[in-house]
Amino acid sequence: MMHEYTIESKTRQEMINVTDIVQQAVAGSGLESGLALCFVPHTTAAITINEDADPDVKRDLLYKLEKEIPQADGYHHAEGNSDAHVKASLIGASELIAFDEKRLVLGRWQGIYFCEFDGPRRRRIIVKVGSFA
Amino acid sequence: MMHEYTIESKTRQEMINVTDIVQQAVAGSGLESGLALCFVPHTTAAITINEDADPDVKRDLLYKLEKEIPQADGYHHAEGNSDAHVKASLIGASELIAFDEKRLVLGRWQGIYFCEFDGPRRRRIIVKVGSFA
Amino acid sequence: MMHEYTIESKTRQEMINVTDIVQQAVAGSGLESGLALCFVPHTTAAITINEDADPDVKRDLLYKLEKEIPQADGYHHAEGNSDAHVKASLIGASELIAFDEKRLVLGRWQGIYFCEFDGPRRRRIIVKVGSFA
Repeated sequence: MMHEYTIESKTRQEMINVTDIVQQAVAGSGLESGLALCFVPHTTAAITINEDADPDVKRDLLYKLEKEIPQADGYHHAEGNSDAHVKASLIGASELIAFDEKRLVLGRWQGIYFCEFDGPRRRRIIVKVGSFA
Repeated sequence: MMHEYTIESKTRQEMINVTDIVQQAVAGSGLESGLALCFVPHTTAAITINEDADPDVKRDLLYKLEKEIPQADGYHHAEGNSDAHVKASLIGASELIAFDEKRLVLGRWQGIYFCEFDGPRRRRIIVKVGSFA
Repeated sequence: MMHEYTIESKTRQEMINVTDIVQQAVAGSGLESGLALCFVPHTTAAITINEDADPDVKRDLLYKLEKEIPQADGYHHAEGNSDAHVKASLIGASELIAFDEKRLVLGRWQGIYFCEFDGPRRRRIIVKVGSFA
């Protein structure tokens, strides 16, 4: 039960809520309980879990990452996106989330986000769902 | 086999060793071998694995995070805890640890830590244990 | 199906490609589809996924981590490697990768890296492979 989804980012740095996508993969599995792995097959993007209420949290997270890890910073990689590679490794390529009674086990304020660090681009996310007991 | 535990943090930033809690969930599962997912359902807290010997390692980790990501820093989010949201995404909401012969497979110096970034608060951690072979 | 491998780092900070090691563990499992957990049992090393093409990406990642998290920085831990402990928690102790048709599900440019932050040392990585459906 592995699903692939396409995401279109609109700007260089952007957090896109993918909670519904992961929840749909879980619901579609027919499983009552298990784990969902949400993974990006890219090296300048990432997956994180953070607040799904005030959009300023997303703004502040991207603002701080950009402030500390600007695009130009003595890098050697010729593509000019080494900052995005650094951010990708700091945030991480995946999140693993439990589900129970066909629902993701997330806290009240949590959402799952695709993090774009070198957009705009067409991107993919992979969700693998399985039982775990 | 999903367990929820309550943790009381005492200060704004704090690392609390939860290795014994995760080990108990593993032992209580009755399984010989598998995986344990340790997860926080919060957006201003995190889970990490680091040294479980000299307490100065915890002090130094929190010191450095606070030095680079102070509470006030041009943030927009009105709750005044955007630094905690940033730290939460950098450290991550979960750790996945293998176990074998009913014991967590950790290195000699490793412990599992709940990281509080916006305490003091009553917090929850969720541990899901399952077989994996 | 848990395997342990030995790695020899040559310098204080180094990224070593371990994709082939993880792929071998997957192939050796005989499983068609599942998950592979790649884990370091150390507190001054980490696992990440990043670009497996231009070696400058590795150079730039280590350069930026060293620039922002230098070895000397008001730390208390007497071993002089607190920077390595900080980097270890920021990058993370493990990566979980799906596999299908006996092949790791990685993007075209992705590789799995062992990250040394306090070498040179003899290190271990642990790979646990299991089915997941």
